[in-house]
Amino acid sequence: MVIGILGAGQLARMLALAGKPLGLKFIFLDPTPNSCAADLGKHLLGDYTNKTLLTQLAAEADIITYEFENVPVEIIDYLNQNTPVYPSAKALLIGQDRITEKTFLQDLDIATAPYAPVSSLEELQQAMSDIGYPAILKTRRLGYDGKGQVVLQSTQDLDSAWEAMKNAPAVVEGFVPFDREVSLIASRSVSGEVVYYPLSENTHHKGILRLAKNTQNDPLQAQAEGIINSILTALDYVGTIALELFAVDDKLIANEFAPRVHNSGHWTIEGSETSQFENHLRAIMDMPLGTTNSLGYAAMQNFIGRVPASKKLLSLSQVHLHLYDKAARKGRKLAHATARTESLEHFTDLIESLTALARQSDDS
Amino acid sequence: MVIGILGAGQLARMLALAGKPLGLKFIFLDPTPNSCAADLGKHLLGDYTNKTLLTQLAAEADIITYEFENVPVEIIDYLNQNTPVYPSAKALLIGQDRITEKTFLQDLDIATAPYAPVSSLEELQQAMSDIGYPAILKTRRLGYDGKGQVVLQSTQDLDSAWEAMKNAPAVVEGFVPFDREVSLIASRSVSGEVVYYPLSENTHHKGILRLAKNTQNDPLQAQAEGIINSILTALDYVGTIALELFAVDDKLIANEFAPRVHNSGHWTIEGSETSQFENHLRAIMDMPLGTTNSLGYAAMQNFIGRVPASKKLLSLSQVHLHLYDKAARKGRKLAHATARTESLEHFTDLIESLTALARQSDDS
Repeated sequence: MVIGILGAGQLARMLALAGKPLGLKFIFLDPTPNSCAADLGKHLLGDYTNKTLLTQLAAEADIITYEFENVPVEIIDYLNQNTPVYPSAKALLIGQDRITEKTFLQDLDIATAPYAPVSSLEELQQAMSDIGYPAILKTRRLGYDGKGQVVLQSTQDLDSAWEAMKNAPAVVEGFVPFDREVSLIASRSVSGEVVYYPLSENTHHKGILRLAKNTQNDPLQAQAEGIINSILTALDYVGTIALELFAVDDKLIANEFAPRVHNSGHWTIEGSETSQFENHLRAIMDMPLGTTNSLGYAAMQNFIGRVPASKKLLSLSQVHLHLYDKAARKGRKLAHATARTESLEHFTDLIESLTALARQSDDS
Repeated sequence: MVIGILGAGQLARMLALAGKPLGLKFIFLDPTPNSCAADLGKHLLGDYTNKTLLTQLAAEADIITYEFENVPVEIIDYLNQNTPVYPSAKALLIGQDRITEKTFLQDLDIATAPYAPVSSLEELQQAMSDIGYPAILKTRRLGYDGKGQVVLQSTQDLDSAWEAMKNAPAVVEGFVPFDREVSLIASRSVSGEVVYYPLSENTHHKGILRLAKNTQNDPLQAQAEGIINSILTALDYVGTIALELFAVDDKLIANEFAPRVHNSGHWTIEGSETSQFENHLRAIMDMPLGTTNSLGYAAMQNFIGRVPASKKLLSLSQVHLHLYDKAARKGRKLAHATARTESLEHFTDLIESLTALARQSDDS
């Protein structure tokens, strides 16, 4: 069976590495030469809107999926005429627009931060009198890793913040005074089987995920599963999904979801019986899903801009290295390392070591 | 870094899958078109003695290794002029000839089955009067998976057995009345760091490995490590090695070693903190070796000739599938599945299920 993937970055690469043992072959469409998944399958080099390549992708693949949520929905619809695409255009469409997404969540009675659509400086000023400071102004579309976001601390920030939006439709969101940032990753198959991973506890810096670690019997697990389950059902979702949440006391507030495998689930490669990548593939092939039990404590540290020497990382006992084979560039996700262990003390030590190594090498 | 591999079968495939996350690239030399590792790197299609291709392999690879032990030693010597080859020609040379191997082991005071070289029917008759029945007549060279072997139950078998050897130099080995067949897998790096895996308990049928499972605190572990350690030191070995042993009461008798990753170590992919494949790569790159602690109970079931439907296998909780992407052929190793679990009861059930599925599909 051939899986087609829009995008050939590190997520596609890890999907392919998970899929090879299942006997799968891969074909990628990506405009970047030497994309990091490219040598794990066939690489169609060209734009995502290139009809000839899209037609070839649909012809050669049995099932198509994608590694990023900014795919134009028209492309999914086009591909889907001949070849099933998972997750569906509906999930993508809702996730691509922050207002549509928030409305969708509220319609499902899922708590979100207070928000308001904003398309002019006046609307921003008006919205802020309701929402209050601090708040975050974000572009409605195409944001990721903190891009297209400005923090608003007081009325003095409004002019420059609005200018930064460059008249793009925006949304202003009230800041949630969270205790923890967590994410729930789940997979749902064509037949409707659902599995949930343990909540991941996430640390961001400058809008980019740095550290993600699994939780053990988190008191908010059941609440998070309830939330994601209504999303999965409403979307008739197929594949792996990631839902980012704020934990405030004993309540969860939904931030956003990504209709794909997610950076905060990379620890599942070694830390779970079945990884988020394998379960995404099983889900879209309508195979039985793999169990998601954790194998001890697991945490993932991102390496951004620069990667510590492999020898240093591999000298840490029970640390696993994932280099993405990407050229180093400021602010670019180049690699991650996973620590997995049965001992909480060792776990704490490993996280400390990995964070220190990341800090030495991070340039962002 | 580019790793060159002689052979592009399933062992090379699993090496490449383990090496990609370490940022490695692969180049394979293999005479078989569409070899199953081929699409994980560059495939040089041609004979192992093809000088042009060998020169290209040595030029493009930073380090060379191999996935089978029948590589002519001259080839290793040729490659080694320009590019380091691990394990060394010495390990290969000794392992390729059953007499040289047995002599080598006995020189290290390692117990073996009684044996005698045999190059005529008369010598066979003479040897059998010393060794006694039952015994096994084997070709001195190029045997694997029970090929080139004939069991001798009585004097009546001698004529036909010798005929089957077709005048190839042979060895007759006394049958060891073993309690268990086990193997020890170890890795040794360029710097001399050594790690040992827990003993694997192996079940063969018609000379082919069917089931391998890890042991927990096996009473013979320390004895096996002592044996393999003298072999590693004597050979100044670099890479992963597999030593097959017979357990008789509280003693181990060496059968043979393979200077490579080994079928009885496939359960280390999910069953160990670091797999035999990753540790082979770390060893030849002179990186720190990964810990070899087991993650619960782990067993591997081979699928030979035919593979059960993926859906059936993946419906078993905590079972992992490894399809080699090889065309089905009678007696051919096509895939394996690994069961891993913390529960002994579940482990026993899974082995039973996997064995039953294998029996339904095995044609050998």
